[in-house]
Amino acid sequence: MKPYKTTASRIVWSSPWYRIRQDELLLPDGSSGVYNVVEKPPAVWIVPLTLAGKVVLIRNYRYTVDDWCLEIPAGSQQPQQRLAETAAQELREEIGGVARNLAYVGQFYTANGICNEISHVFLATGVTLGPPSREPTEVMETRQVSVSEALHLAATNQISDGPSALALLLCAERLRALDG
Amino acid sequence: MKPYKTTASRIVWSSPWYRIRQDELLLPDGSSGVYNVVEKPPAVWIVPLTLAGKVVLIRNYRYTVDDWCLEIPAGSQQPQQRLAETAAQELREEIGGVARNLAYVGQFYTANGICNEISHVFLATGVTLGPPSREPTEVMETRQVSVSEALHLAATNQISDGPSALALLLCAERLRALDG
Repeated sequence: MKPYKTTASRIVWSSPWYRIRQDELLLPDGSSGVYNVVEKPPAVWIVPLTLAGKVVLIRNYRYTVDDWCLEIPAGSQQPQQRLAETAAQELREEIGGVARNLAYVGQFYTANGICNEISHVFLATGVTLGPPSREPTEVMETRQVSVSEALHLAATNQISDGPSALALLLCAERLRALDG
Repeated sequence: MKPYKTTASRIVWSSPWYRIRQDELLLPDGSSGVYNVVEKPPAVWIVPLTLAGKVVLIRNYRYTVDDWCLEIPAGSQQPQQRLAETAAQELREEIGGVARNLAYVGQFYTANGICNEISHVFLATGVTLGPPSREPTEVMETRQVSVSEALHLAATNQISDGPSALALLLCAERLRALDG
């Protein structure tokens, strides 16, 4: 049950990547309020496991925080694209990866206080690596680590991109089984 | 080393909670581009462990995604506030919690593709619960679970708020040690 009533809604700012919707609300206590929602398409996060059993991480420059971050391949779903297609595309573009199998793991809200983005997690196995085809803004390099190293990095706060760390930890049981 | 050069910067939209900064960039390949950054103060996420050894979760209505989410207490740092003060305040406001000890666990970027928010994680121990004092937009109820149940919920994708799930998993080792 939705505890707020929306009394008005309009787009107050937009870009090709996301936009801001500003809603006026009637709150449960009878007062009125404003809620701004960052409207963004769903995102996919792909944990890549190579044929040799290595997890492929990306060291990625992020302009928003002016920092280099350890991450996994990720991207936003494009219109008319299925999530698995987005996952395969990002894998190919960011690390030149092709997966034998792409398994859906689960989803979480990235930042539900301000944004409606849903992050979907895929585990890509049997991955072979080729030349990537990155966009000009994508400045990154790849790094291959063992399953136990990848999970250790994520669990000990050494993967500074939150969704990447969580995606790895959500794959922990499956990765350990494959590493067996 | 920063691989982009910023050639112009302006605020294109703002609200009391966050704003959009639009930068013009010179990219590594010589082309120009635009990067919009959601500028938001740091956030704190608090994993509360009661004197009785229970983890306190919140079931929270989130307007952005029109969904009820399992979460932990969290909030944005206010001006002139230290992070530990924000953590203590959110604990008190959201669950009426007072902690004997507040330990800093680590930090991650919430959504570094679009936003500069840093999420800081605290573990609050020896927590006693009293009446909360929530804001009108905060519609939530609390739930107490064992340490193993909290970690199981987080690891098996049953905590739909990503930063809450990650914060719990980043506390896993400390929580298990306290659960002795």
